[in-house]
Amino acid sequence: MSNSPFAEWMPAVQGLVEAALARHLPGADCIPSRLHEAMRYATLGGGKRVRPLLVFAAGELTGAAPEKLVIVGCAVELIHAYSLVHDDLPCMDDDVLRRGRPTCHIEYDEPTALLVGDSLQTLAFELLAGAELGEPARQLEMLALLAHASGSRGMAGGQAIDLASVGKPLEQPELELMHALKTGALIRAAVLLGALAGQPLTTEQRSQLDRFAKRAGLLFQVVDDILDCTASTATLGKTAGKDEAADKPTYVALLGLEAARTYAEELRADALAALAVFGEKAGRLTQLADFICHRQF
Amino acid sequence: MSNSPFAEWMPAVQGLVEAALARHLPGADCIPSRLHEAMRYATLGGGKRVRPLLVFAAGELTGAAPEKLVIVGCAVELIHAYSLVHDDLPCMDDDVLRRGRPTCHIEYDEPTALLVGDSLQTLAFELLAGAELGEPARQLEMLALLAHASGSRGMAGGQAIDLASVGKPLEQPELELMHALKTGALIRAAVLLGALAGQPLTTEQRSQLDRFAKRAGLLFQVVDDILDCTASTATLGKTAGKDEAADKPTYVALLGLEAARTYAEELRADALAALAVFGEKAGRLTQLADFICHRQF
Repeated sequence: MSNSPFAEWMPAVQGLVEAALARHLPGADCIPSRLHEAMRYATLGGGKRVRPLLVFAAGELTGAAPEKLVIVGCAVELIHAYSLVHDDLPCMDDDVLRRGRPTCHIEYDEPTALLVGDSLQTLAFELLAGAELGEPARQLEMLALLAHASGSRGMAGGQAIDLASVGKPLEQPELELMHALKTGALIRAAVLLGALAGQPLTTEQRSQLDRFAKRAGLLFQVVDDILDCTASTATLGKTAGKDEAADKPTYVALLGLEAARTYAEELRADALAALAVFGEKAGRLTQLADFICHRQF
Repeated sequence: MSNSPFAEWMPAVQGLVEAALARHLPGADCIPSRLHEAMRYATLGGGKRVRPLLVFAAGELTGAAPEKLVIVGCAVELIHAYSLVHDDLPCMDDDVLRRGRPTCHIEYDEPTALLVGDSLQTLAFELLAGAELGEPARQLEMLALLAHASGSRGMAGGQAIDLASVGKPLEQPELELMHALKTGALIRAAVLLGALAGQPLTTEQRSQLDRFAKRAGLLFQVVDDILDCTASTATLGKTAGKDEAADKPTYVALLGLEAARTYAEELRADALAALAVFGEKAGRLTQLADFICHRQF
């Protein structure tokens, strides 16, 4: 898989992850069946799987085995899926469309969607704790990293700042923190976790990989903000133009569209520069950063 | 602490756990401060801490160190606290009173309470993954056990069955499963985790401890159902009579009050019988089972 063209590698990884998620999510025949059916609805059959792709691409830096990467990729994707289900709830973004389908609380109901998010989060940690990923001490480090990245000082904290910011200008430190946390923290975790699944990195390599991971997280968010105001709802599979309508602080609102595009290119260049230390092994991460920067959906 | 009377031991453990929770929860001075303040509000300064008490009492069976038990006790209590915050939300039980104070979404707001629950869950796993509890492999076992007990095949699954059951009679297997999962799974996990923090158990000991843990979980639920219809709101610190008003399937509804009391005594006797294999070391668990059975709040 490691030498295939990007256009073949991407669907191959997505397919692996989809199959593994389908295997690790409890079956709809398992009690409580409605909850399990809703968990599968919210997780399977959609999504770009950007975070698992990052896990696999970063894993190539350290020669990690695909059977370990797929577990790590599933764990990160389950955290992402939980956050989408909860973010879409009426008391949060109140959204009805996700991945081109009704959101979980529309298709099922609100209490079920709440429990779906709760249970997907738990399953992420159950999966990561239960798998045999090599050294137990390394695995604990991975669990702690994923938990920190998704909790109140990570993704959920970014969501809290985002909520508080609607309709009022944020202070600059809070705005940057919000962007770094809400999407950035989990993207960064995906990169670091993928690398942790293989051979140890040197301190310098780890530092450069972290630089890449932070830039990639910001890049993803900036491009997301650009697409929110330039792409159609049909292309995105979620409601377009929503950030502006909700008066949310986005990079486009902050910088304007053209400057946001320039900023995205700068972030991409800086992310790629950080990969120099890895030489050829960083080929896949380079391609993925290009994809994240130039995607149309 | 191990030889002190129960009436001294209980507040001592509660104090240790309260102090550790206060230390491990992010400070309200840490961004996002409102979220962190709400997490502290929802967790600190209330609650019987039954699950940490079970962790400590079970730890005496295997000579576990208090500094390990307090971490495990905090992790279990954080899962419990998250479940209360989400259960109280308008789309679930819609309750306004908890531990004698306004529920989290009343004191703060609904989106904050959603993120509080999400973040408390994450913190439980972060804490358990980050601590040094001895053997990393054992620690992974503990993480997997806690995750399984709280997810869709544990506590959250029980909540889903409970929701689905309001106003309509459940099939017997689903009713028993609901009770075993909703409260039982986390109580059972608390007992097993406390023991896992010390020296290994024999297969027979582990089997008997699991029997105790399952009975204790059921016992706690049966007594909870009895108190819901016999105690006052002021005594409970949460809305009394709520289960009956909501037409929820409870042991009192199923068996009647007197038979429920008899059932509680039977469960207590069976739980204590399971402890025989541990001899004197089970003194604290015995006292705690008595307390759970005869508590008035």
